[in-house]
Amino acid sequence: MRKIKFAAVAAFVFISNMAFSQDEDSVMIKKISDEVLFNGTAYSNLRVLCKTVGQRLSGSAGMYKGEAWGVKTLKEAGAENVRLQECMVPHWVRGKKEEAGFRTAKKNGDPVFNVLSIGNATGTGDKGVLAKIIEVKNFDELNQRKDEVKGKIVFFNYPFNKTLLRGAYGDAVRYRSGGASAAARYGALAVIVRSVTAATDNNPHTGALRYNDSFPKIPAAAISTIDAARLSNYIKTGYKNADFYLRTNCVMLADTVGHNVIGEIKGSEFPDEVITIGGHLDSWDPAEGANDDGAGMVQSIEVLRVLKAIGYKPKRTIRIVLFANEENGGRGGAKYADDAKLQKEKHIMAMESDGGSEYPRGFGCGMTKEQFAKVAPWAKYFTPYDADKFSFSEGGGEGADIGPLQTNFKTAQFGLSTTGQRYFNFHHSAIDVFENVNEQELHLGAAVMAAMVYLVDKYGL
Amino acid sequence: MRKIKFAAVAAFVFISNMAFSQDEDSVMIKKISDEVLFNGTAYSNLRVLCKTVGQRLSGSAGMYKGEAWGVKTLKEAGAENVRLQECMVPHWVRGKKEEAGFRTAKKNGDPVFNVLSIGNATGTGDKGVLAKIIEVKNFDELNQRKDEVKGKIVFFNYPFNKTLLRGAYGDAVRYRSGGASAAARYGALAVIVRSVTAATDNNPHTGALRYNDSFPKIPAAAISTIDAARLSNYIKTGYKNADFYLRTNCVMLADTVGHNVIGEIKGSEFPDEVITIGGHLDSWDPAEGANDDGAGMVQSIEVLRVLKAIGYKPKRTIRIVLFANEENGGRGGAKYADDAKLQKEKHIMAMESDGGSEYPRGFGCGMTKEQFAKVAPWAKYFTPYDADKFSFSEGGGEGADIGPLQTNFKTAQFGLSTTGQRYFNFHHSAIDVFENVNEQELHLGAAVMAAMVYLVDKYGL
Repeated sequence: MRKIKFAAVAAFVFISNMAFSQDEDSVMIKKISDEVLFNGTAYSNLRVLCKTVGQRLSGSAGMYKGEAWGVKTLKEAGAENVRLQECMVPHWVRGKKEEAGFRTAKKNGDPVFNVLSIGNATGTGDKGVLAKIIEVKNFDELNQRKDEVKGKIVFFNYPFNKTLLRGAYGDAVRYRSGGASAAARYGALAVIVRSVTAATDNNPHTGALRYNDSFPKIPAAAISTIDAARLSNYIKTGYKNADFYLRTNCVMLADTVGHNVIGEIKGSEFPDEVITIGGHLDSWDPAEGANDDGAGMVQSIEVLRVLKAIGYKPKRTIRIVLFANEENGGRGGAKYADDAKLQKEKHIMAMESDGGSEYPRGFGCGMTKEQFAKVAPWAKYFTPYDADKFSFSEGGGEGADIGPLQTNFKTAQFGLSTTGQRYFNFHHSAIDVFENVNEQELHLGAAVMAAMVYLVDKYGL
Repeated sequence: MRKIKFAAVAAFVFISNMAFSQDEDSVMIKKISDEVLFNGTAYSNLRVLCKTVGQRLSGSAGMYKGEAWGVKTLKEAGAENVRLQECMVPHWVRGKKEEAGFRTAKKNGDPVFNVLSIGNATGTGDKGVLAKIIEVKNFDELNQRKDEVKGKIVFFNYPFNKTLLRGAYGDAVRYRSGGASAAARYGALAVIVRSVTAATDNNPHTGALRYNDSFPKIPAAAISTIDAARLSNYIKTGYKNADFYLRTNCVMLADTVGHNVIGEIKGSEFPDEVITIGGHLDSWDPAEGANDDGAGMVQSIEVLRVLKAIGYKPKRTIRIVLFANEENGGRGGAKYADDAKLQKEKHIMAMESDGGSEYPRGFGCGMTKEQFAKVAPWAKYFTPYDADKFSFSEGGGEGADIGPLQTNFKTAQFGLSTTGQRYFNFHHSAIDVFENVNEQELHLGAAVMAAMVYLVDKYGL
């Protein structure tokens, strides 16, 4: 391309709001955006997090290093009252590097599949599980073929439905989170789950499962989309009674101590009214958790930094929270809300960024109709940044970590919404690394988060 | 992140249009989108282009290989009447690998800068140019310091203004395209230009310059943003009178023969009414031209493929054009429009994709007010795909290749608009490769292009 038109940003919707676009708030929001895009520290903070801390699985040494990074980074951003809020977290460990061999009558040279235990799962132990494998497309097929399942390994080969766009993950993740218990109900010994990702590659993706206590807790492992196609092909082409060997060494230890990391700016007029902005500190272990959710943390910290940098004095208390244990327990979010209730705090708004570092498109708005009637007209301020898609959900939660505040206080919720089509290529896998984050997109997300915080702080909700 | 709400796609704007969303056209557009997202061939076609053809600079062997790829790929997609339309193209060649050394009194161990000649530039020849270097921030500073320029190399160090979002490229590219003649006017011997990119990295970015015939044609080379900062630092810290040595071996040869590659589906009711969809075949030479503009070509071909795949019979003639020589001449677009005039064709609409492979956000609409009044209400069909930002420009061109059709016929223009914040990291540099294209984003772009073509074909304009 040689030329880009200057006017390209002047979208149709924007034109219709032109009359309003030069008011005091749009000027302030431009100031916020310019400061983040010129001088933002989110990207450089993320580099430090990814390259000096790395993975931050709950209970791991990485989690504690991450907490120390959080304290330091919040202080550097100018936060006051930086503190750790203790909470107990699950302590699941992967153990030794696991592996699985697909065996046709235990001959040598059998194909090997790169497996990755699903989080919270029980392991097979050193001996592993050797059993016949049965492939099912979905839960319906599992239920229809329940009599064939006993004593076998069930392979859930449910594809990521790209046509659902932002709904594809929710649709497919049911097999990772619930597949083990669904299969155990019919006597399966273990499950293999096709990775929940849009990518066609060799990376297995982990993530949490939840056992149903009514059934045996059986091992569960993810395989990549390419391996899922290979395995399906083997089963379809003459190895219907093939054995599969799975070995995983993971184990759930006793709960251990973790922390939410908190810093704030005290409000000048209404210090008792709290606005919480956060991302989660823990990550899965195969990589650096750059998109999930390093991005959300550094964007949240940037909200505080930019408000100070432009000299804005918030009326209300702006509190940044780096939540513990979002991935496999949600203990940090629950603790934060419970403690707020104990302290009789007043939480008027909470915002979470946990959808990756991509180009922002708007906000999920979980609140009352009356609150949304106030918020909806603000979309015009976000149109120049393309972040004007506000989706309303009456009384809904807008993230795993801030959801409990809705339950406890009816706190208005904002979840940053991103274009999100690349996110699940990286998510919970070995390629969720700093290099898969774009600086400008990350900073645009922080800018629109700060803009919304500014509006809510100024006008209340 | 653990959970994504299924409802997240139901944006506020979308909700307000829900009543209309199940009509025949939205059903057809969903069918188009599903076909592209499930079975699209744009991504696999792009892989073949990038990995078996590579760079396609006008006049190069790669250009001819690209033309052959285009013919084959259009035929495979089901195009009729696939043909080459001859046009003369400039034949600029880079010559041997160029280099520049920054010399402090010609001592050994001087720092080396990785330079890349700007396209269409004259070379220094084997001897190179050795001269004192002067840094200017912009044209204003150049004009103020015009008396210092004679006999020197001018270094334009104008940064990419990220706060302009989609306008940043147009703002900064003036120094690449016009810097050489601006400096030659005051007697400069050569220019060095900071690369036009948002990235902070070591990749120099090329692109075209245009000489003003009133002044000497002097050599011009790009350096990376990191090298620009290094060079600026050297000049500022005590080497004010430093020499800079530049050597480039490029040369502009006589025009040679190139081709637009064309294929179509004949209209069933109004075969004489032509709808043109295209991207450009040529690319710069440092890499594969994956985003610029391999993406636009494979998306355009996909428009034709998907209409056939879902069994839609267009009323009007749908013509795909892979334009020659967009980058350093625009000869293909001019030839296509001139030939159409000669043949007295009727061109009702033209669409171009030349903004990279990223997530689509809408269309630039260059047309009459009356035409836009018909197009604007269609935004509701694009909201589920986030591509509902329609920016209107009365009688405007929406791309270098389709612009001449506006001039000749007042043909309504559509330019695919993308989020576009990553594009200029890759653009015209060694990293514009297949690996920097996301399949789902590329396919979403093709899907919304096909949807707009369907609407215009059905209702006319």
